[in-house]
Amino acid sequence: MEPVPLDQALRRVTAAPVIAPHPLPGFARSTVDGYAVRAADTYGASEGLPGYLTVTGAVQMGAAPEVTVAAGTAVAMPTGGALPAGADAVVMIEYTAEAMPGTIEVIRPVAPGEGVVRADEDAAEGQEIIPNGRVLRPQDLAMLAAAGVTSLRVHARPVVTIFSTGDEVVPPDTATLRPGQVRDATASALAALVTDAGGEPAGGGIVSDDPGALERALRDALPVSDVIVISAGSSVGTRDETANAVGRLGPPGIWCHGLAIKPGKPTLLAECGGPDGEPGVPVIGLPGNPRSALVVFRLIGMPLVRRVGGCPAPPPEPATRARLSRDLASATGRLDVVQVTVAAGTAVPLFGASALLSVLTEADGYIVIPEEATGLDAGTDVEVFLYA
Amino acid sequence: MEPVPLDQALRRVTAAPVIAPHPLPGFARSTVDGYAVRAADTYGASEGLPGYLTVTGAVQMGAAPEVTVAAGTAVAMPTGGALPAGADAVVMIEYTAEAMPGTIEVIRPVAPGEGVVRADEDAAEGQEIIPNGRVLRPQDLAMLAAAGVTSLRVHARPVVTIFSTGDEVVPPDTATLRPGQVRDATASALAALVTDAGGEPAGGGIVSDDPGALERALRDALPVSDVIVISAGSSVGTRDETANAVGRLGPPGIWCHGLAIKPGKPTLLAECGGPDGEPGVPVIGLPGNPRSALVVFRLIGMPLVRRVGGCPAPPPEPATRARLSRDLASATGRLDVVQVTVAAGTAVPLFGASALLSVLTEADGYIVIPEEATGLDAGTDVEVFLYA
Repeated sequence: MEPVPLDQALRRVTAAPVIAPHPLPGFARSTVDGYAVRAADTYGASEGLPGYLTVTGAVQMGAAPEVTVAAGTAVAMPTGGALPAGADAVVMIEYTAEAMPGTIEVIRPVAPGEGVVRADEDAAEGQEIIPNGRVLRPQDLAMLAAAGVTSLRVHARPVVTIFSTGDEVVPPDTATLRPGQVRDATASALAALVTDAGGEPAGGGIVSDDPGALERALRDALPVSDVIVISAGSSVGTRDETANAVGRLGPPGIWCHGLAIKPGKPTLLAECGGPDGEPGVPVIGLPGNPRSALVVFRLIGMPLVRRVGGCPAPPPEPATRARLSRDLASATGRLDVVQVTVAAGTAVPLFGASALLSVLTEADGYIVIPEEATGLDAGTDVEVFLYA
Repeated sequence: MEPVPLDQALRRVTAAPVIAPHPLPGFARSTVDGYAVRAADTYGASEGLPGYLTVTGAVQMGAAPEVTVAAGTAVAMPTGGALPAGADAVVMIEYTAEAMPGTIEVIRPVAPGEGVVRADEDAAEGQEIIPNGRVLRPQDLAMLAAAGVTSLRVHARPVVTIFSTGDEVVPPDTATLRPGQVRDATASALAALVTDAGGEPAGGGIVSDDPGALERALRDALPVSDVIVISAGSSVGTRDETANAVGRLGPPGIWCHGLAIKPGKPTLLAECGGPDGEPGVPVIGLPGNPRSALVVFRLIGMPLVRRVGGCPAPPPEPATRARLSRDLASATGRLDVVQVTVAAGTAVPLFGASALLSVLTEADGYIVIPEEATGLDAGTDVEVFLYA
């Protein structure tokens, strides 16, 4: 937990409920331009038989009323002005007319409370105005500002250390590739997804396939990380080396190695290095193919980062419904994630090896074929999760 | 336009298409663990009648192949390894077995290209990999990293100067309010919405209702702003003063004053201070009630900020479908924006004066009743735009 000033609190997660320090808005306020009155003085008023009231003053914006409203009198009110004592309603100016200097006629009755918000209508003193665990949205900042809360306690952003492995992987700023080399595409995108999930990405860098190198790097990262993510290399050998290194970090250890998801099968989930009985650091070993890695991290890593960051229910994702343009095959017992473009209500699947990034950059979103399905027919109404 | 490094490019808007500087991935790559072969050598292979191939070497990750594949031979391949010359496919290891040291049997034929991505399959040299005007998503950063593009030209964030007006409005850090005073709730939320729309909020501060003060503040802001937003005060007097001040800023001038939208009717749209024939700075005068102001800015201000920021089509918003819990009345010829909570597929409208912020902080999203409707019946399937 840490304090943040209000102007840096957008999307941070509250670590405690926020309580109104005083009633809000704090005074009975007019919601219209018009006249503060005693409602009873307007009962029965109509165009044919208006009520007549003596105007005894006017309320200024931002100032305490200098006049009170007695029976048979009215006080001119701007929208947002403080209701004078004695008044219990405000007649809209549209339902009044100046009968003679200092006197208005009222052509419509108002009920008590009409044209007014009560002094505690937005919040009573001590009332919760923002719940614990709220991912702060723009309007939440408005409420906090109204309550004078300019600093608040939020969960620290979880530090997510991102490692890339593989002897073929070189930094993105490598100008010229030698044959067989590829630039590290996954780490940049993972850092962005971590940011989107409210985390703080930490660059662990590229670790060679040298046995022991990954284990050393992970041991160094454990004390300073809330979550560790490894692009685990795409070949069987590097995947095994990742599992070995993670396994040696200590209990609780590996939860699972292999998920019934396509793409993304060779995913490893573990929890490592927790002292006796204490929870450890979650470790996600992602598939080596950038596309598989990003699909799995979106489905599993982002909710995990959010949860570690104090957000029990992830905020809503953009989604739309569309008609599937063609049949899609799928094996039962396996979740399939299919990239699609969406136009004019039609979702068109994109195909290609999971090594291809262009499938992801062309996609507008993705659909999920559930485990129990054997596929989806053309024309099926599907939910498309949209990339924002 | 300005250059940004890749690790700060998330959600920035490209100011030019990005072109692949060389083919991607740059070499023919295995997509599986297995053996590089000439596909023709595997034709007709089956479990009953396997093909036999001599293993002449192995490809190392990240290195150029040191061997070539001739007829009748195979080279061991890790996933992601570079395909040796002479080979045109990779047989998955699952479809092979070691027949004797140095010889494998292949039990399934492969077609040319199987198990391989071509050297230019993700992108050919000179091909557009990211279009102009793209709001960069995590996967776009992956593609840019893969292409070695670590700095790129993006549109500058539009500077959006935010003014608050009204003699009743005091800064959020005001500890104790005098009667009739309210803290500036709108500016904090507007700054957040500007950030969400890719803009750079600039705090114009609170301007008094003193005639001339707003005009002077606007004139100072014009040369350093791409968009100006004014919480225009909630009373008729301050609204008029805003319109007068904006009107004096020079042509093209006020486009419209008053929108057929609820809440949000007293909205002013203008374009000010453009030199001869040049476009001016868009100016939005928002209603004084925080809730009305935020509703209007979401619908009109955010798309404007995005467009000024080089994004022709706004990215998708979170939305869901739900059944309306009760009848909603609406006047024809007016767009109604109704705040709702959503749970278990049901949208429950929230009511309350537009001065109340609690309606917005309680809401999960909003629905729009179109101009032509006279209302919506309970049970209607509605689209809810969700606050993320």
